[in-house]
Amino acid sequence: MNIDRIRAAHGRIKSTIRETPLLSAPFLDDLVGKRVLVKAECLQITGSFKFRGATSAISALSEADRQHGIVAFSSGNHAQGVALAAQKYDAPATIIMPADAPRVKIENTQAYGAEVILYDRASEDRDEIGARLVAEKGLTLIKPFDNEEVIAGQGTCGLEIAAQTQGIEEAAVLVCCGGGGFLSGIATALADEKPGFTCHPVEPEGFDDVARSLISGRIERNAQTSGNICDAIISPSPGQITFPIMQRLCGPGLTVSEEEALRAMAMAFEHLRVVAEPGGAVALAAALFRTSHLPQDTIIATISGGNVDAAMFQRALEML
Amino acid sequence: MNIDRIRAAHGRIKSTIRETPLLSAPFLDDLVGKRVLVKAECLQITGSFKFRGATSAISALSEADRQHGIVAFSSGNHAQGVALAAQKYDAPATIIMPADAPRVKIENTQAYGAEVILYDRASEDRDEIGARLVAEKGLTLIKPFDNEEVIAGQGTCGLEIAAQTQGIEEAAVLVCCGGGGFLSGIATALADEKPGFTCHPVEPEGFDDVARSLISGRIERNAQTSGNICDAIISPSPGQITFPIMQRLCGPGLTVSEEEALRAMAMAFEHLRVVAEPGGAVALAAALFRTSHLPQDTIIATISGGNVDAAMFQRALEML
Repeated sequence: MNIDRIRAAHGRIKSTIRETPLLSAPFLDDLVGKRVLVKAECLQITGSFKFRGATSAISALSEADRQHGIVAFSSGNHAQGVALAAQKYDAPATIIMPADAPRVKIENTQAYGAEVILYDRASEDRDEIGARLVAEKGLTLIKPFDNEEVIAGQGTCGLEIAAQTQGIEEAAVLVCCGGGGFLSGIATALADEKPGFTCHPVEPEGFDDVARSLISGRIERNAQTSGNICDAIISPSPGQITFPIMQRLCGPGLTVSEEEALRAMAMAFEHLRVVAEPGGAVALAAALFRTSHLPQDTIIATISGGNVDAAMFQRALEML
Repeated sequence: MNIDRIRAAHGRIKSTIRETPLLSAPFLDDLVGKRVLVKAECLQITGSFKFRGATSAISALSEADRQHGIVAFSSGNHAQGVALAAQKYDAPATIIMPADAPRVKIENTQAYGAEVILYDRASEDRDEIGARLVAEKGLTLIKPFDNEEVIAGQGTCGLEIAAQTQGIEEAAVLVCCGGGGFLSGIATALADEKPGFTCHPVEPEGFDDVARSLISGRIERNAQTSGNICDAIISPSPGQITFPIMQRLCGPGLTVSEEEALRAMAMAFEHLRVVAEPGGAVALAAALFRTSHLPQDTIIATISGGNVDAAMFQRALEML
């Protein structure tokens, strides 16, 4: 991964994606005692940065590959990002989702024009279903993070951050982190454009595979991959492609509690007027509650939320 | 009011205000059967377009007038817009608010650096308090809508809409309307930049003074000015300056129910991931539920929300 690849992705996708605003509010600055800037990827098309990576990957395919079609596994934001990106390039999309995924996520994915194939998590193997579709129909699999063009697409968010922070030379950049595609893209872009910025992964407590991997120097796994409201960013381990990038470019990981994620959602509601999901609020939570030890006076945090459950949001509002 | 004045205001304030995004979502387009574009002024600094007008008016004052200080009457978004705009120009600000205003609105205004003077609505006259401050201390009064530089500032939102709709030549533009400052500014900008666009005021049912004034050709008043959740945009009548502009440039008014405003807040939450207050959601409500009779295939609606109450938002979420 390198800056040229991210710039090339930006050239392909910039008229399709939305340039998201960098938000701020005096109350948040006062709370933290530092300047807090929030990169609002919840305002990205489909509600998350996943649309950047999906659009980058699909736009990089040959016309013939696009005509054969795209396949992806996801129960969340990657599903919707791939579905809509495929629709924009007239590529048929098949998304393989667990049969017990929330109905609204299935419907959102179908609304973006994708065919959804449901599988039973107990008795079926999604990789097998995917492999059969690739073999029989010639579909191209778009992985959620371990894909060079997906990472390059996520990196376009880093280019935007750099352009939106003219005059700021030092900052800690906190990024919500699952498999590490978003973080490794942003870190690659900023290493070139803002050498004084340091990027950090933010994960839920108890699901800090990336933070532990950065400490041990090898890929660590989570003991479990469910049982936390930040489900959108929980993956078993960092990726084979993303981990070396993060190891080379990123500072130590931060973790936050579920309650801190909910409180960050409430603060984003009240002071920024944007809607985040728990997994998309962990970086803001870390910015608000876990940055007193960082030397930088400016904190930049990503926020996103492609699938925000109203009942979960009501829990967050009760934190106010 | 004319386009040159709006362009001059834009030149003064563009580095201070935020250019807000024009959002969209396939679900909303499908619901309406038209293209729906949402100008997200809830993402403006302080949460509403009022910051544009206040910044325009204060930036147009002489340095001596700014040093003497600013005064405004408001219990809501205008208070916060003036408070922060004054702070940015190092002008002392005094905001006169009713003593029974919600505590959060008073605190927000103070957080932006203003001195808040509370008055008793039953026994005191706010105009008298304001007149005394103007006479004794030489403060400059910034009215919420009947002020040429305020209208020019609100018009900068129209310049942004024009720049964000390249390739679109016909649209109905629905604007949340109280005294008409926002609408007359936007209509003036678009009359020049987008002659194929038609602007319409949107008001709550039973508080449609502007719609009735446009029909009768003279300034009509509301029978009451309280008792509706859309309180942010309820004013007694259109302004002396704003009404002739709206009469010259705008199409007929639309009205929406309280329930429709709440449903629009819920749709904005779910599909656009932004937070609106009821009064700031009426234009989106009209776009979603009241535009089948309009000939245009594209509807543009403003949305804003500087003071969003969590309990009110929970009511909206129950509409999902």
